[in-house]
Order: sequence, then structure tokens, then C-alpha cells
Amino acid sequence: MKYSTSATDSYLIRLDSGDDIIPSLEKFAESEHIQSASFQGLGSLQHARIGHFDFQNTHQYEFHEYPEDLEVLSAIGNITLLDNKPIVHVHLSLSRRDCSQIGGHADKGCIVNLLEIQLKKMKTVFHRKKDAKLGLNTIEIQ
Amino acid sequence: MKYSTSATDSYLIRLDSGDDIIPSLEKFAESEHIQSASFQGLGSLQHARIGHFDFQNTHQYEFHEYPEDLEVLSAIGNITLLDNKPIVHVHLSLSRRDCSQIGGHADKGCIVNLLEIQLKKMKTVFHRKKDAKLGLNTIEIQ
Amino acid sequence: MKYSTSATDSYLIRLDSGDDIIPSLEKFAESEHIQSASFQGLGSLQHARIGHFDFQNTHQYEFHEYPEDLEVLSAIGNITLLDNKPIVHVHLSLSRRDCSQIGGHADKGCIVNLLEIQLKKMKTVFHRKKDAKLGLNTIEIQ
Repeated sequence: MKYSTSATDSYLIRLDSGDDIIPSLEKFAESEHIQSASFQGLGSLQHARIGHFDFQNTHQYEFHEYPEDLEVLSAIGNITLLDNKPIVHVHLSLSRRDCSQIGGHADKGCIVNLLEIQLKKMKTVFHRKKDAKLGLNTIEIQ
Repeated sequence: MKYSTSATDSYLIRLDSGDDIIPSLEKFAESEHIQSASFQGLGSLQHARIGHFDFQNTHQYEFHEYPEDLEVLSAIGNITLLDNKPIVHVHLSLSRRDCSQIGGHADKGCIVNLLEIQLKKMKTVFHRKKDAKLGLNTIEIQ
Repeated sequence: MKYSTSATDSYLIRLDSGDDIIPSLEKFAESEHIQSASFQGLGSLQHARIGHFDFQNTHQYEFHEYPEDLEVLSAIGNITLLDNKPIVHVHLSLSRRDCSQIGGHADKGCIVNLLEIQLKKMKTVFHRKKDAKLGLNTIEIQ
């Protein structure tokens, strides 16, 4: 991972072969003291671990793994605080060799070939808190 | 729906269970006097109504409905003015339980489980106007 | 192609019927002296030429063509410099008439029906350089 320095709260981040998206971005956030941000990215993965949340019944994620080259058509996400530590939430739209698409909520284990991320720090700091009913950590907005 | 106040023309918006994306964002825009903006979002729907526009023949949308939990991998959109009222244009990339994807132009009737939207107000105000040949409201740019 | 003037480094760009995404945006960048930027877009294509890069074996793109109306669910990309000329990198998530999705890395030959792009100029200038091992032009970050 390499990232630009920023005088304007915007960063260009390049993740390289073997980088795991979520731990890499959380490490970046801790190093740069970023508490809240939004980002978008494009590139390629060599392994995806993505899931789908069942809001109606189980209130849990079901994950699937794809050990193959996948174009990252979009990586849309944000960084907020959970228990005062930066946490990354990112969803991935991916394409396979035949251009068909798969996608979902990214878990740890999304391993990069190359990924270009544009990130913008937010002026306000947002916290997540467990919503016991949903089974998810939702962003608190007053 | 909850949204942050903003001193910098950026908003974080959380749509909650039962919120309909387009009417909710149009209500937000009216409340906050937002005339033009762009946004991106991620989250989940419980019902999607998405369509495909036929530019070659009918010049109309054909819509499909999906009454199921769908991850929102990307919600890319903008707000502009039509007849001086804010109008939302948004396209959705969605994934089903098996991580396969469906998507299209969002109509009213895209009902949220949870959706996190980052929105940035534009400095310039943009208007849409009916393009009779296309059958669509296109953004006017001088 | 039409684009707004901008006092704040943000542009709204409308590509029209027959515009080819990559050459159009490269022409825009040259006209506006934009050396680095990131963007997102939504709209429709009448023809797509999209590919998948094989990082494991061939280190080349394999392209597929789709001569049909396709909703552009997301066009996520950036502009940087290669040999001091602006170069566009963009990935497309697309949907067909039945709302199924295809996508990939966009090549020249992605022909627009209508496309709305929100672009933000970067304060820093970024250059790409050939990475001989990967077979790709990667963004240089110090």
C-alpha cells in the first residue's frame, strides 16, 4: 500500500498485490488519524470474500469465496469509528473473465492485485453502534 | 431517514427500514434547499424496482421488481432541478443471496433495509429539460 | 459532450449519443488542463467494449463487445498523466434489458447513449509508469 500526502483531506491510495482491502485501509486510517471518510475505487482482486446479509430471518452474513482474478468495477465504502477505532465498510461489484458480475459486502480476505482508491476525509466524525435488533453496527446520526 | 448537518456542503445520510430511496432523497433535498448534488451509497434493499431504457425503439423504461433482500453495491446518482423542484436520478448495482448481480435505473419503489449515502452539494445549479427526441429529461449544460 | 465551467475544481459532464467515453474524457482533460482527477458516472451505452486482465498468466486484457443498450450503473474512474498526457482509467458496471449485469475495464469503443459524469480535479498531479512485471501502467505514489 502507498498513499499520497494530502493538504486538502483527499488521498489517492494504491493497494498492491497481496494487500487485504479492509485491514490495509484500517491501518491507513490509524496512521493518518482519519476518523471518518468516504471512498471509491477500481482495480482488480486475486481473491474475494463477499457476503449477503439476511435482514428477514437470520440477521447474519453468509459469505462466499472466489479464488480468481476479478476486476473491481466499484469499491464503494466509508470509514467511521466503532469503539473509537476506525472501521471500514465497503461493498464490491466484481467481474469475472467472461464479464459476468458477482458482488457483495466485503469481508477480510479480499486480496488485491492492484486497486486505486480515491478517499475524502469527512469534516464530521461519525460513530457506529450495535443495533441489537438488526444485528449490524449502524452509523449514529443525531 | 437521518442526515448530518453540514458546514461544508457534504452530508452523510442514513436511510432506514421502509424508506423509499427516491422520495426520501427528494424530501431531504427540499428540506435542505439543495438544488444540485451528486452522491454515492451502499447498503441493502428489501425490494427493488429497477428498469432499462430502450434508446433504439420504444424510448421508454421497462421495469422489473425484486421483492427480496439485495445488497446495494453501488447507488450512484445526482440531484438536479426539474420545473424548479429537486429530482433524483440514481442507478443501482445490486447482489442477490448467491452474490449474482442485477441492476438498473431506480424507480420509486426501491425500499431500503439500510443505506448509507455520502452526498456533496454542487456549487452550480443544474436544470433538467425534456428532450422530446430521446424521451428523457436531460441535464442542461450551456 | 458538454461540460460545466467550474470555479471549484468540480465539473458536471454530459456525454451524448455517439460519444466514445475514453477519447471524450481525454479531450476534456486536455481542453481544461486537467492533469489528475477522479470521477463517477451513470447513464446508458449503445455499445460496450470491456475487458478482464489476467494477472496470473498472460498479463494481458481479453476484451468482449456488447452492441446493445446497456444501463451504466457505475462508471468509476480517474485521470492521471502518462508521458505527460492525460489518460483515463475507467471501470463499468452495466445492465442488460433483463437487468442482468456485465462489466469490466473500459476500452476505447464504449459508445454513449447518454452519460452524466461528476468529476473532481485533484490538487496533486499523479503520473503513471509502465510496470514491466505486471504489464500495466501503475500510478506512481512516493
